[in-house]
Amino acid sequence: MSWETVCGLSAVQMRAEIEAGHLSARELVDAHLEAIAHWNPVVNAIITLDADSARARALACDEAQARGETRGLLHGLPVAHKDCFLTAGMRTTWGSPVYETFVPAQSSLVVSRQQQAGAITLGKTNMPEFGAGSQTFNPLFGATRNPYDPRLTAGGSSGGAAAALACRMLPLADGTDMGGSLRNPASFCNVVGLRPSPGRVPQVPGSAIYNTLTVAGPMARTVADAALMLAALAGPDARDPLSIEQDPARFLAALDHDFTGTRIAYAPTWGGLPTEPRVVQALQAQLSVFDTLGCHVSEACPDFRGADASFHALRGLAFAVTQGDTLVRARARMKDTVIWNTELGLNQTGAALAQAERDRGALFARMHAFMQDHDFLIGPVSQVAPFPADEEYVREIDGTAMNNYIDWMRSGYYLSLTGHPAISVPCGFTAEGLPVGIQIVGRYRDELGVLRLAHAFEQATQCWRQAPRHPAA
Amino acid sequence: MSWETVCGLSAVQMRAEIEAGHLSARELVDAHLEAIAHWNPVVNAIITLDADSARARALACDEAQARGETRGLLHGLPVAHKDCFLTAGMRTTWGSPVYETFVPAQSSLVVSRQQQAGAITLGKTNMPEFGAGSQTFNPLFGATRNPYDPRLTAGGSSGGAAAALACRMLPLADGTDMGGSLRNPASFCNVVGLRPSPGRVPQVPGSAIYNTLTVAGPMARTVADAALMLAALAGPDARDPLSIEQDPARFLAALDHDFTGTRIAYAPTWGGLPTEPRVVQALQAQLSVFDTLGCHVSEACPDFRGADASFHALRGLAFAVTQGDTLVRARARMKDTVIWNTELGLNQTGAALAQAERDRGALFARMHAFMQDHDFLIGPVSQVAPFPADEEYVREIDGTAMNNYIDWMRSGYYLSLTGHPAISVPCGFTAEGLPVGIQIVGRYRDELGVLRLAHAFEQATQCWRQAPRHPAA
Repeated sequence: MSWETVCGLSAVQMRAEIEAGHLSARELVDAHLEAIAHWNPVVNAIITLDADSARARALACDEAQARGETRGLLHGLPVAHKDCFLTAGMRTTWGSPVYETFVPAQSSLVVSRQQQAGAITLGKTNMPEFGAGSQTFNPLFGATRNPYDPRLTAGGSSGGAAAALACRMLPLADGTDMGGSLRNPASFCNVVGLRPSPGRVPQVPGSAIYNTLTVAGPMARTVADAALMLAALAGPDARDPLSIEQDPARFLAALDHDFTGTRIAYAPTWGGLPTEPRVVQALQAQLSVFDTLGCHVSEACPDFRGADASFHALRGLAFAVTQGDTLVRARARMKDTVIWNTELGLNQTGAALAQAERDRGALFARMHAFMQDHDFLIGPVSQVAPFPADEEYVREIDGTAMNNYIDWMRSGYYLSLTGHPAISVPCGFTAEGLPVGIQIVGRYRDELGVLRLAHAFEQATQCWRQAPRHPAA
Repeated sequence: MSWETVCGLSAVQMRAEIEAGHLSARELVDAHLEAIAHWNPVVNAIITLDADSARARALACDEAQARGETRGLLHGLPVAHKDCFLTAGMRTTWGSPVYETFVPAQSSLVVSRQQQAGAITLGKTNMPEFGAGSQTFNPLFGATRNPYDPRLTAGGSSGGAAAALACRMLPLADGTDMGGSLRNPASFCNVVGLRPSPGRVPQVPGSAIYNTLTVAGPMARTVADAALMLAALAGPDARDPLSIEQDPARFLAALDHDFTGTRIAYAPTWGGLPTEPRVVQALQAQLSVFDTLGCHVSEACPDFRGADASFHALRGLAFAVTQGDTLVRARARMKDTVIWNTELGLNQTGAALAQAERDRGALFARMHAFMQDHDFLIGPVSQVAPFPADEEYVREIDGTAMNNYIDWMRSGYYLSLTGHPAISVPCGFTAEGLPVGIQIVGRYRDELGVLRLAHAFEQATQCWRQAPRHPAA
């Protein structure tokens, strides 16, 4: 098989081919290394690559299979890790000059779980400095570009992962999401990104282990692949005080499901957020899919009152917790927006944080009530389509000026704040051929429900199959 | 049977007697109303009583049993609720003049779960204003007194519950614990108080649902009774974003367990906290019990560095979240210490809170490592024995001055901060006949392990059987 054919398979298919002995881990790794050689110069998604180690691990994987040893969920599948996850013996930078040469001695649990499940680490994926902002650029590695138009951004902060998936450089990837960082790049790159519930994927080691805004989660090209990755990443760990006590094997359940009679709330602008008409049009064009599935769709949106101030305060606290020390010792090498966020967090009052906690609690209660009347909530992932890679953030949407560099991410962070699981699934393209994602939000801790509806939507639309075209092609 | 005999039974025994038809819920309620008439004037533990409703509910309970209807875990057992839990149609004051006449329309989940399990609400138990401090007095109802010496305090903040249990006015009670409020009064009154893991007992409705310091939990005279109550209180609820996804039936498992080879760390002063010698002596006198159980006991203590500042900051935030609004509209009717705590919380900086989160995270990681080398950690519940009821808080311990009104509660709040389950079990008496509790701390989320070791200790010591003597006797 050509590398294009091999890398075009889904992760679930690759696993079946390996299991059947039709494909070796070594062949799979080699094919993906070819894909990287072909595509990475275009999009700059993989910023650290260790081909030799990957080949050696793949060989060990194949030998283990030959000996008849039990194979893990991700046996032989190539992966790369967002550069905020620690990789033992491999550079880990958070996209920051402060950590340009940092090589950790131990791996994050997100990484070691993938490796224990048999995945082969190829390298690391690009992200903005300390994950700040839904764009992916930094002074160490530059910008990650959109596979569907390399002049544009891949989104962020898990932008390297999303672009790598779209280009078939990886079948599976990991990411993190505070305000939309698993969903926005998925939307911009025509792939799948699932923001799970806080505690679903334990954060070990964690510098802010009581922070329920930032979560880790799976990215993939198909929903079934994302479910497979989630099954490998999830499950409680005693080192994360908030991890969810549920067996992750639940995510290996069949995704086919009858949605007849399911009540879906549709929020085309999340209650009036400025949103590009071409984004809403892309969603509108696919809305009938839910009718076909037998769902009842009605326009409705939870009351997100207080969400903005609450998110700003809690995000500020999170930055103060994780970057407060770094600011003191390495301020000169930090990005302005990160300094701004961290100082906002350090200088805010307890009164503001108390109000943020109250508002967040009230929002959660309203969301719970809303989700009693609706089984799912859908709307755009992003308020905009991909924008030029040299624009650091969106300054205006459809004539409305943004107040700051995260103002355009409200369609992402409103859902971060409630903590309900939310997925980005490919929903089609703008007239310019730019990907648009639909966001499907489920009941609290019901990732399986979200995956099932997303899978049904994907089966009907098949948008993910439209791969990007290489500029040289 | 006399009311003394009936009320002297354990909750587990009462349940068996009702199930066997030897005792009706109505008889049980009447006996406890007699106990209340006899004892409450001495200790002032039950501050709201609704005998008529209780009798009516008991009758309904007996009728349901006669019809052969399924009986809940607490079928027919009299309970009273800490006055911070909402009771539909029954006054709920938080011990504060601000809420002197407040009658809520709905009950807290802690209350409704007990009632759905068949428990009969007799009334409410006393607490200090807004639960602040490990003493139980307030301007509405006065002080709750120690059953073993009514000149002394019952401890707090779940002091009404502890005193009521000791006096056999209730077989089971509920409480809350931010810094020791389930454990300190249990220790002072020779009863059992279990601080469960955050999220074990969902807090609904919650004004601070992301606060993992404050938890609700069971109180009882025996460990088996506490386990029964926990099984009724625990289990996930979608309205609490941090609730633990485990079936509470796990707490109905047999408590008998072989502890041969169990490694126990003993921290007689929690790493050097000022502690009354008579408290340490009471523990020392029972330490051989663990040898008899086959355990290996060694002196060791986790490193609680940073715990004090961290607890103050996070406690301040919790007060700011829950009392910030009340302070604005009713400051004149609030206790000085509550105003102090709330203002501390409102006026602190994000930098202090970020440091608190970092320190708490580091403490949790150290505690996790410590609990890999030890299966359990034991030490005093309280650094002091019960003190005069007219002293608002402890100002000095064994020659060391306390800095503020919660400084003497460090043996409680250090463990609140880590979030590990901790129980107070009767451990004997001082030379003056004052109860002393031993604190048993288990691995994260392992309440069952804690209950089992506490049960083994209780079986060997039987301290709980020493009931208080009525002053008129």
